[in-house]
Amino acid sequence: MDKKFRITPISGGVCAVEGIYASGVNAGFKKEGFDLGYIRSDEEMKVAYLFTTNRFQAAPLKYVLRKDIKTTNFILANSKNANAMTGEEGIKDIEEILAYLAEKTEVKNPIMSSTGVIGVRLDKDKIKNGIDKFDFNEKNSEKFAKAIMTTDSFHKEIAFEVEGEFGKFKIGGVAKGAGMINPQMATMLCFITTDANIPENEMKTLLSEVNEESFNAISVDGDTSTNDSVFLMTTGKAPYDNEAFKEVLKQVMLKLATDIVRDGEGATKLVAFNVSGAKDSNEAKIAAKALANSLLMKTAIFGEDPNWGRIASTVGASGIECSENSITIKIGDVTLYEKGKILMTSEVEEKAHKIMKKDSFSINVDLGMGDGKFTAYGCDLSYEYVKINAEYRT
Amino acid sequence: MDKKFRITPISGGVCAVEGIYASGVNAGFKKEGFDLGYIRSDEEMKVAYLFTTNRFQAAPLKYVLRKDIKTTNFILANSKNANAMTGEEGIKDIEEILAYLAEKTEVKNPIMSSTGVIGVRLDKDKIKNGIDKFDFNEKNSEKFAKAIMTTDSFHKEIAFEVEGEFGKFKIGGVAKGAGMINPQMATMLCFITTDANIPENEMKTLLSEVNEESFNAISVDGDTSTNDSVFLMTTGKAPYDNEAFKEVLKQVMLKLATDIVRDGEGATKLVAFNVSGAKDSNEAKIAAKALANSLLMKTAIFGEDPNWGRIASTVGASGIECSENSITIKIGDVTLYEKGKILMTSEVEEKAHKIMKKDSFSINVDLGMGDGKFTAYGCDLSYEYVKINAEYRT
Repeated sequence: MDKKFRITPISGGVCAVEGIYASGVNAGFKKEGFDLGYIRSDEEMKVAYLFTTNRFQAAPLKYVLRKDIKTTNFILANSKNANAMTGEEGIKDIEEILAYLAEKTEVKNPIMSSTGVIGVRLDKDKIKNGIDKFDFNEKNSEKFAKAIMTTDSFHKEIAFEVEGEFGKFKIGGVAKGAGMINPQMATMLCFITTDANIPENEMKTLLSEVNEESFNAISVDGDTSTNDSVFLMTTGKAPYDNEAFKEVLKQVMLKLATDIVRDGEGATKLVAFNVSGAKDSNEAKIAAKALANSLLMKTAIFGEDPNWGRIASTVGASGIECSENSITIKIGDVTLYEKGKILMTSEVEEKAHKIMKKDSFSINVDLGMGDGKFTAYGCDLSYEYVKINAEYRT
Repeated sequence: MDKKFRITPISGGVCAVEGIYASGVNAGFKKEGFDLGYIRSDEEMKVAYLFTTNRFQAAPLKYVLRKDIKTTNFILANSKNANAMTGEEGIKDIEEILAYLAEKTEVKNPIMSSTGVIGVRLDKDKIKNGIDKFDFNEKNSEKFAKAIMTTDSFHKEIAFEVEGEFGKFKIGGVAKGAGMINPQMATMLCFITTDANIPENEMKTLLSEVNEESFNAISVDGDTSTNDSVFLMTTGKAPYDNEAFKEVLKQVMLKLATDIVRDGEGATKLVAFNVSGAKDSNEAKIAAKALANSLLMKTAIFGEDPNWGRIASTVGASGIECSENSITIKIGDVTLYEKGKILMTSEVEEKAHKIMKKDSFSINVDLGMGDGKFTAYGCDLSYEYVKINAEYRT
């Protein structure tokens, strides 16, 4: 390896970082299992965040923005209720809850984060009751990860230790999300902790850059939620190296983002849509996301049908520059169409069909126009997706 | 009535117009039923058309554009094969087929129109064999309408007679489409005949204007096809009145367009998404189409779930200007949220749920920002949609 640093997976999720605690309890929103959790730190952490582009940002997001929070020692998170479209009262509810929390433990600029149904006021008594149950000294990232789950079928966490000439730092993350996941950031929450001493002015930039290639590159159903948030927090106790940090941050965010796709409501397959040869990277992104979002692609993937015509049609409909004579379409390494030539025979079809039987594969489109490339991640659309979403509130 | 004209439904579809013939045969593409049809006229008709915005326009579209056809006496249409992504050979196939047709009957600038699977060469022998079966003197619009069906579950045709001070004209139309239907025009074919003597320079403009509020206002799954075409043809034998013609053209196109939504693959409900009070009509259109396209809306509609939070979230995510304090959301005439106030009680929910049990209802969003309004038409997403599309080619 000619890299100047080494990235090693470790256990512990967000609690892999020293001085950081997390847990979850049942506050009564879910019949069973965790539904309220916290991440807290011994000393205040610097925090950067990215919020949804939805015009109706939920109350917890507005609260953070209004307070312009830059450091915190406490994140309180609940599932089953998004506290969105709840107006000023939704913000007052947060204030009352955080005031109650302050009676129980020492908090500095606490943050609340919510996910769940839109348009219903928070049940403050349930949350207070949940707060009463907290043991503030647990280091249990898994319980927190489970507390923020809604339609997720598995909890999502990861942690790494990074060692190099600069020394050693750790990074951990948890995320939730399974439906409503779209490239513009959808119902997903992500919390990343580290001890790397990131300069304050680099935190947001780093987060935005890596977000573009991870959470903003995934799609489950093309909708965007009112609550999407990614938080990056650091205790600042360990050395920092820009190159190493950016690389490991991408690993953390890409793993959590593709876990979300893999856990897409009713999804059975994870597909990487690699678009290359576009006029520029923006056009590659448009085409890759169009493929990841297309209902006809998603159902063809569910049906394991190497219907390359749908791939072509979706790219053609995306509005980018392309031509029948320069586009090449592959499923995995099997070429189905190449620059004006239909290569689909029953033998080729069988090969492509075999690739599509896998849990995870790639669809590769080269536009033959330029150097632009982008990878988007999507999943299939199954009967199960319809079932989950038709019955969500019942 | 203070209208200066009267519109009366008549039978006959495209053949309601004198001098126009149509039929369909089985050419062997479908196991049974019609799959090849024609519309023809005694004398040449003036023709205007709108084609898909997909970059990969199918061969039949390219053929018409290259020949710059302005008058015709013959349309040949097939289903089951789109003749798309077939390059120059696809166009040569059309030439060979139309040359064969010319041996059988007198044609002037004949047009071919195709729909079906993308990326497979046409079986010319089957089509020639089908042409051999044509009786060129049938007036059977229904057979033609059935010949262009793919996943459609019913054929779509309509005709009107319009009478006023100016005299009398007729108009008839057929269409096909059930899946891949999107606001940018998707796998849909529409053929409209009339004897109204429309000035040549008005034909395309009229067609474009009415298309915006009909075929471009519907959505089944957000994808756009390589073959979408709307043709307007006139024999010019009857008087013309601009106001009357525009109104009846809208009735014809809106009926055929909503029939397509109603026949959306696996759709069980037709929903009109009325957006009003937008900053301008373009923003209203963006929001209405976003609602009609949203997977979460579609599944909520299938589940008959008055989940107004998804309506708000979808509007908020569409990128238009809106505010929690000015938006009002109704299902039918039941208000669920009004300018910052959540009005959803279990009683209100029950009322809204009742409306959603109907085959057809409206979702009404007023943004309270300005005068812009637009209506988009969509349907629900059912298990059946997934089934049809996962198994399309098998």
